[in-house]
Amino acid sequence: SNEAKEYENYFGLTLLDRRSDKRTDTKWLSKKQSHPTTIYILFSNLSPLVTLGGGTESSQQSEVKLCRLRHKDVEQYLNQTEDGTLIFLGVELQFYTNVLAACNGRVLQEDEEDGLVAWFALSIDSASAEEFKQKHEDCYFLHPAMPALLQLPEKEAGVVAQARSVLAWHSRYRFCPTCGSTTKIEEAGYKKTCLKEDCPSLRGVHNTSYPRVDPVVIMQVIHPDGNHCLLGRQKRFPPGMFTCLAGFVEPGETIEDAVRREVEEEAGVKIGHVQYVSCQPWPMPSSLMIGCLAVAVSTEIKVDKNEIEDARWFTREQVMEVLVKGNQRSFFVPPSRAIAHQLIKHWIGMNANL
Amino acid sequence: SNEAKEYENYFGLTLLDRRSDKRTDTKWLSKKQSHPTTIYILFSNLSPLVTLGGGTESSQQSEVKLCRLRHKDVEQYLNQTEDGTLIFLGVELQFYTNVLAACNGRVLQEDEEDGLVAWFALSIDSASAEEFKQKHEDCYFLHPAMPALLQLPEKEAGVVAQARSVLAWHSRYRFCPTCGSTTKIEEAGYKKTCLKEDCPSLRGVHNTSYPRVDPVVIMQVIHPDGNHCLLGRQKRFPPGMFTCLAGFVEPGETIEDAVRREVEEEAGVKIGHVQYVSCQPWPMPSSLMIGCLAVAVSTEIKVDKNEIEDARWFTREQVMEVLVKGNQRSFFVPPSRAIAHQLIKHWIGMNANL
Ligand SMILES: Nc1ncnc2c1ncn2[C@@H]1O[C@H](COP(=O)(O)O)[C@@H](O)[C@H]1O
Ligand SMILES: Nc1ncnc2c1ncn2[C@@H]1O[C@H](COP(=O)(O)O)[C@@H](O)[C@H]1O
Repeated sequence: SNEAKEYENYFGLTLLDRRSDKRTDTKWLSKKQSHPTTIYILFSNLSPLVTLGGGTESSQQSEVKLCRLRHKDVEQYLNQTEDGTLIFLGVELQFYTNVLAACNGRVLQEDEEDGLVAWFALSIDSASAEEFKQKHEDCYFLHPAMPALLQLPEKEAGVVAQARSVLAWHSRYRFCPTCGSTTKIEEAGYKKTCLKEDCPSLRGVHNTSYPRVDPVVIMQVIHPDGNHCLLGRQKRFPPGMFTCLAGFVEPGETIEDAVRREVEEEAGVKIGHVQYVSCQPWPMPSSLMIGCLAVAVSTEIKVDKNEIEDARWFTREQVMEVLVKGNQRSFFVPPSRAIAHQLIKHWIGMNANL
Repeated sequence: SNEAKEYENYFGLTLLDRRSDKRTDTKWLSKKQSHPTTIYILFSNLSPLVTLGGGTESSQQSEVKLCRLRHKDVEQYLNQTEDGTLIFLGVELQFYTNVLAACNGRVLQEDEEDGLVAWFALSIDSASAEEFKQKHEDCYFLHPAMPALLQLPEKEAGVVAQARSVLAWHSRYRFCPTCGSTTKIEEAGYKKTCLKEDCPSLRGVHNTSYPRVDPVVIMQVIHPDGNHCLLGRQKRFPPGMFTCLAGFVEPGETIEDAVRREVEEEAGVKIGHVQYVSCQPWPMPSSLMIGCLAVAVSTEIKVDKNEIEDARWFTREQVMEVLVKGNQRSFFVPPSRAIAHQLIKHWIGMNANL
């Protein structure tokens, strides 16, 4: 299933099949929770527990990898977590395929061991986290999340994106927004239900019960001449970094109109044609970055200083200097694991002989 | 700004420029609120106040249109709404252009009348709604919202999509999800802030303060032979109606993977290539329908009876019979104003000579 993946990358790949059908299968879930092959990944303050990867001397970046814990490692925390934020993440894709092949189409009995390797995310409090680190000296919590998360191997990043988004939802949405009462977690972490008996949120299906995903547009704006692109920077960026403009999609708005509105708001540039390129989950806390090319129909830049600090047209040559030749003296762009980098690269590869 | 709009339609067009910069300009907002050219649209229980459109005898569907009220019509409700759900929607695009032309590049003085026609949405309680209907006999609240909203003229539908989504957010998210306290509405309806002094939601920027938009994937699934498509139906659909499969994007998931997951979950069919086509806001209450073509790599259908009632491969000829010739004896699809209809039509127009 990889045809459309050319520009989906980091946070978009995953090791797991989510198997949402198992979220309500409490018997299966509880069996898997204590199964010896089951993998637990641990979080504290939304940061995953990691360890240093094996010394791949060739790679310049020091790679970290998730600590894959077993039931015995987390047993005591499982029983003591009062808020019980345990999330079922899915089952291993690779292994799944093998098992299916092995049982050769035969349907498993209800109680039979299915061989699926389940993954869970467990969030523990700061005190338990300290305790844990003391016991496991080679492990630490990756903090702050950005840009540290970009050091994870790609497939683990996808798992962390899923887990971190759902955990962030639980930590920020503890109370029922409809009535203010406390809630309980259901469906292996993917639903929360108000505990007040006559709350209107209990009648019908409402999004208050489900995790939030915030669609964001991020766009490579192309000059009408096709040979320049518009990149901007926020005050909080490292000095010299420029990237694609971006902004949240508003209620009642299409992706294409959100692109046009944001570019006009932030840089005063009018956009005509908009084209979807690819997307990337961004677990800060739970955005879906929707990457587009946007063709400008005006060129004068008026920066909205409330939103960004600077925006400029860069020539194709300037961008190639940075992206292809790696010469970052005048400016630089986000790392290749960010969708902005991929969008810029996509443009560089288009009409290169204009 | 219409190049990419071929398949963006209903709920996606709009009369208004949102002018989000004005949301914090309290002086401007309060001047516009009582300005004689300002338009108010009224809502009760998330249904807009409408009236019957002029008798266009040619159109079969009875058209309704929004009641465009003035400050004098709503003055008394403005003062008495305790929860104060008044939303600034934007300014008229058409008029805006004229004004800009008229003032010929000259910058307006701060206090000068800018000529912009502002629109607001006002939500009133059921008692006030009754009262209002008695005073204005030709007006009524469009209820239930679906399919009634599909009778609005296209550009008004876009305004209603925006207003209804934001109002639904206020009605369902009255309390701070982080601490359970009451909240106050800010930024002309686009932000809500917790009233508890030391609430963690007040430190930093959090999505709890901003309206929710739920991304949904909706996909026209194409058979590997290119000449059949997969349509399904839910139990609650009118008898005979089939449409594209759809489902919510989950946290940490790309659009393309959500398409693959949903089709496999609902119909047991495996998907390879996925391609974005167009999107449509869907204000029930606040979804963004992301329309895709999805190419199947397996053909056996296994319907998940919890999610859908039936799913079948239809031939290109069967679909053309319904869509092009209007013969709806064997089955039918959603009306042309729904994105599903547009996706199906898009496929019919592709490789038609296969
Ligand atoms: N944001 C959401 N709003 C409503 N339902 C959701 C949401 N996310 C997931 N769901 C699930 O999707 C089901 C409804 O899907 P649908 O049939 O597409 O309306 C609900 O029963 C929920 O289980
Ligand atoms: N869902 C959301 N989450 C966070 N900020 C939002 C959201 N929707 C709109 N905003 C606004 O977007 C700004 C942050 O945008 P950004 O610079 O892209 O991080 C915030 O200051 C808010 O005004």
